[in-house]
Amino acid sequence: MKLHTYFRSSAAYRVRIALNLKEVEAEQSPVHLLKDGGEQFGTAYDALNPQHLVPLLEDDGMLLPQSLAIIEYLDETYPLNPLLPRDPRGRARVRALSQAIACDIHPVNNLRVLKYLSEKLGASLEQKNDWYRHWVTLGLEALERQLSRDAETGRFCHGDVPTMADCCLIPQLYNARRFECDLTAFPTLAEIADHCEGLAAFANARPELQLDAQ
Amino acid sequence: MKLHTYFRSSAAYRVRIALNLKEVEAEQSPVHLLKDGGEQFGTAYDALNPQHLVPLLEDDGMLLPQSLAIIEYLDETYPLNPLLPRDPRGRARVRALSQAIACDIHPVNNLRVLKYLSEKLGASLEQKNDWYRHWVTLGLEALERQLSRDAETGRFCHGDVPTMADCCLIPQLYNARRFECDLTAFPTLAEIADHCEGLAAFANARPELQLDAQ
Repeated sequence: MKLHTYFRSSAAYRVRIALNLKEVEAEQSPVHLLKDGGEQFGTAYDALNPQHLVPLLEDDGMLLPQSLAIIEYLDETYPLNPLLPRDPRGRARVRALSQAIACDIHPVNNLRVLKYLSEKLGASLEQKNDWYRHWVTLGLEALERQLSRDAETGRFCHGDVPTMADCCLIPQLYNARRFECDLTAFPTLAEIADHCEGLAAFANARPELQLDAQ
Repeated sequence: MKLHTYFRSSAAYRVRIALNLKEVEAEQSPVHLLKDGGEQFGTAYDALNPQHLVPLLEDDGMLLPQSLAIIEYLDETYPLNPLLPRDPRGRARVRALSQAIACDIHPVNNLRVLKYLSEKLGASLEQKNDWYRHWVTLGLEALERQLSRDAETGRFCHGDVPTMADCCLIPQLYNARRFECDLTAFPTLAEIADHCEGLAAFANARPELQLDAQ
């Protein structure tokens, strides 16, 4: 099994955490999103993933893009340490929390979107940073309200074991800190992050510890 | 069961198709995203969904946002007409196709993003339309390449019965046409759309046929 990844990609970071939690080994094949105009556009990667995004999982001939699809695939094929609860309502809640990040926060702040803002719309660095913080803050505010309200929230996003939702939350918080977003208004998220970051599965997936980090 | 919806929301449209395919009845409760500055920000809806997005499914006390989480919940609780295949690889492929639309095309072109472009970054109508078409075209190009390449593609995105991926594709194509995107380069998508639109489940979910359409 091979994971095409980039150390700074928030979506690849999610899958690295999931692989660690599931104790599944995957060879990491780095795709440098910035070098030479972006290796994701090169012939080799283009043939694997026409979407030109990371991560991509290669498993015995299957080419699987999309981080949440990859995490659910790992969860369905490797039973150890389930990343989704067993009951449909719990599963739905974990998926919805994951998608609140993976659909509604992250893609709007993706590298290619920020690039479009400056190159095509002439946005300044300050305008780009405002954009970034706006969508992160809006998304995390809603998450904080939901997680602090729901009885299902425990030491982690859903109960007392990590799930796919935590695999999404930690990379998003990591990036928010990188862009100097103010996170003091999110005590529930901070507490969950503390519990996650105490686990080796999360700590070892951090961008700066990856082979392709510079 | 109650679906909080808006006739023009692409994400709500996905769930309407899924409900029709599963033959599940849900009362529709319209949330007008434009009237009075947006009903999604009003006290009543804010208490239900701090994300201020539609759709939201209410089912016996559960408040479930996020269209893909809703569709999988319906699929897990109502066995008739499965919207995901049984094998993990097929399920992964359908999820990845769905997420290619629901994560990487739609959120970047959402109403609130287009609003930010004009109100905060001073984008002209033309620049906004260019933005819209850019992300739709990029995303659909990748989908066309993947669907035309994969042996698993059939009359629908995955084989010969509709799945969650088709529930995502049709609303995205509907919106692309509304914004006058050129779709002639996507013959595989057009063929799948023809097969979908021939089914009452898809036809009856169209925005203009909903009670809240004006």
